[in-house]
Amino acid sequence: MAIFSNEEYLSRITKTKQRMLDAGIEVLLVADPANMNYLTGYDGWSFYVPQVVIVALDDNEPVWIGRGMDANGAKHTTFLSPDHIIGYPDDYVQNLVKHPMNFVADYLIQKGWDAKTIATELDAYYFTARCQQELTKSLSKSKFTDGNLLVSWVRLVKSEQEIAYMKQAGKIMEKVMQTAIDVVAPGVRECDAVASIYQAQIAGTAEFGGDYTAIVPMMPSGEKTSTPHLTWTDEPYGNELAVNLELAACRHRYHCPMARTVYLGQKPPEKLVSTAEVVVEGLNTTLDGIKPGITCEEVELIWRRHIAKAGLEKESRIGYAMGLNYPPDWGEHTASLRPGDKTVLAPNMTFHMILGMWMDNWGFECSESFRVTRNGCETFANVPRQLFVKD
Amino acid sequence: MAIFSNEEYLSRITKTKQRMLDAGIEVLLVADPANMNYLTGYDGWSFYVPQVVIVALDDNEPVWIGRGMDANGAKHTTFLSPDHIIGYPDDYVQNLVKHPMNFVADYLIQKGWDAKTIATELDAYYFTARCQQELTKSLSKSKFTDGNLLVSWVRLVKSEQEIAYMKQAGKIMEKVMQTAIDVVAPGVRECDAVASIYQAQIAGTAEFGGDYTAIVPMMPSGEKTSTPHLTWTDEPYGNELAVNLELAACRHRYHCPMARTVYLGQKPPEKLVSTAEVVVEGLNTTLDGIKPGITCEEVELIWRRHIAKAGLEKESRIGYAMGLNYPPDWGEHTASLRPGDKTVLAPNMTFHMILGMWMDNWGFECSESFRVTRNGCETFANVPRQLFVKD
Repeated sequence: MAIFSNEEYLSRITKTKQRMLDAGIEVLLVADPANMNYLTGYDGWSFYVPQVVIVALDDNEPVWIGRGMDANGAKHTTFLSPDHIIGYPDDYVQNLVKHPMNFVADYLIQKGWDAKTIATELDAYYFTARCQQELTKSLSKSKFTDGNLLVSWVRLVKSEQEIAYMKQAGKIMEKVMQTAIDVVAPGVRECDAVASIYQAQIAGTAEFGGDYTAIVPMMPSGEKTSTPHLTWTDEPYGNELAVNLELAACRHRYHCPMARTVYLGQKPPEKLVSTAEVVVEGLNTTLDGIKPGITCEEVELIWRRHIAKAGLEKESRIGYAMGLNYPPDWGEHTASLRPGDKTVLAPNMTFHMILGMWMDNWGFECSESFRVTRNGCETFANVPRQLFVKD
Repeated sequence: MAIFSNEEYLSRITKTKQRMLDAGIEVLLVADPANMNYLTGYDGWSFYVPQVVIVALDDNEPVWIGRGMDANGAKHTTFLSPDHIIGYPDDYVQNLVKHPMNFVADYLIQKGWDAKTIATELDAYYFTARCQQELTKSLSKSKFTDGNLLVSWVRLVKSEQEIAYMKQAGKIMEKVMQTAIDVVAPGVRECDAVASIYQAQIAGTAEFGGDYTAIVPMMPSGEKTSTPHLTWTDEPYGNELAVNLELAACRHRYHCPMARTVYLGQKPPEKLVSTAEVVVEGLNTTLDGIKPGITCEEVELIWRRHIAKAGLEKESRIGYAMGLNYPPDWGEHTASLRPGDKTVLAPNMTFHMILGMWMDNWGFECSESFRVTRNGCETFANVPRQLFVKD
């Protein structure tokens, strides 16, 4: 089944080439798995070995280069012609004396693409320092430049089909959060609660199956709610404590993340209740202020002013662009909702706004995933914005 | 709950420092999440931002540097003193003009560790080309060298406690594979089968809860069994086709992977049946040949000679060291079972031996995770080695 039409892939490639032209780049090596998927459709858990998609101004189609055993995976998932799918021999894998980027360099030389301006994604997760060193060592004629995030910026505004997948992820997310709120309870092992959440994420709905999310369920409880990125244990939940739920649903690699906090017990602490109230009001107010033309830092300012009235402040950013992604992050690393970010919002940009307050030994989280519309914004999943108290 | 004793962490640090001394390294920057965990206990899904553990010869304790909001996570999961846990301000995150490695460099200067020989993990997943560039730009007095896999090689031989966790993962794996074989059936959506498998992975057993695995379930079906790293769709399984199951279980980040193939239907093709027979015999024969003192390449040769008799050959390696890990790979990237690898097996080394035969439009997989014992080897999970036929 084709996830997108060939026309959509070609349009993405055209936009990428325009940015390459503007930046004086003739050959772009794309190693970020989300960017590789975006340009070709490639979808496999093979990013643990070096692999690239090459976009050259003088070739209509990108070239996929990866491990030999994954070439059939590229044939199954991309729109590329067979001669644009190249597998490297297996002895390049995790070998101390040769590296897959030497193979990529040889290919560039063979195509006559080495005496050009070549850009790499210098800060992409799976493009290691050694990847760059091996390329520069093997390609003496090339001029290297930074192509980091070049494709990611093309991804910022979503197509109607991409939005459709994110809405489907939103439908799954509603089931996932309801499952989480239902299963987290005193005496239940944390791992058993998470097992049910995974079940809901992957089964999806009757119409839309779920995909794995770029980040696993993050569910710190009790004092650990003071920090956001802990996962779970096999201890049972206690009573009179909070659990932060930062979860997501994924459809064809497109995400809808969402965070809520559940309190288990009859007496949530006053500071948690009052903070939740301020944060939820702030979330509503900030979402109300979103529309095309406003900048990312202006969005953050709405929130900042709101919580200042309650004597609160938040150091970290309040959101970021997100959509198509692979582990370890569903964020796109382009626009952030924070001071200094002057990105102007436009229709079909998609963000995760996460208002996490992490204090010394407690915390509260509430978030929404949304798209910018013609005159405002629209969230992808419909779950009440509140502190959930289960007594 | 402490996963390991402080003594065990200190012994790992001592072994690491001995390797640093041997290599002329005074300061080691560890960015691989598994290596960070191994030396300090740190466990959080925060590796999507740059973070390091610094091992300096002149400091008894390593230093953890990460994002400010994750410092509480380090306090909850590591044995480190509070003054060895350093958080950087949030505006270093995904900022186009500053980078967390500038903060790390400032810390090294402040400690007087900059005018030393500093090693980085040049080919670690989350240590990008830009991480290295920012360090070299910020640290003009430092001599840089490659510390890639230095800690990973220390991890090769497991402690008794590590083996205990891998055996617990093995117990979970038995449930996971049984669940997979039970749920994969004609008419069942692939995503629903995977949802049940996730449920089994994370719930674990009554005694041992499960952790997320470093690789998601890989379950190509039908023609897609010709390639190993595809995941799943929301299509229902058909009839008279094979499904490859490459799965794992994880306990406290320690893995037990396992692969099997299931055939749905009454008439598995003759080539699949005969290949399965040769591969399973080869797996048995090769495991029988394992003992301390044999080299990795000698292990592979047992397999190679066995399948040559049946007229088969396999280009890719047949296994690799594995244990503690984070996405995207449970493999340790040190020893591989393949020609040229002269690593000598010793007790408590742990491997995943995976005999995957990926043909033009079909394939078969069978694998075992095992530890080397005093006079042979012992597998972690007990599941029949065969092609499973469900008619």
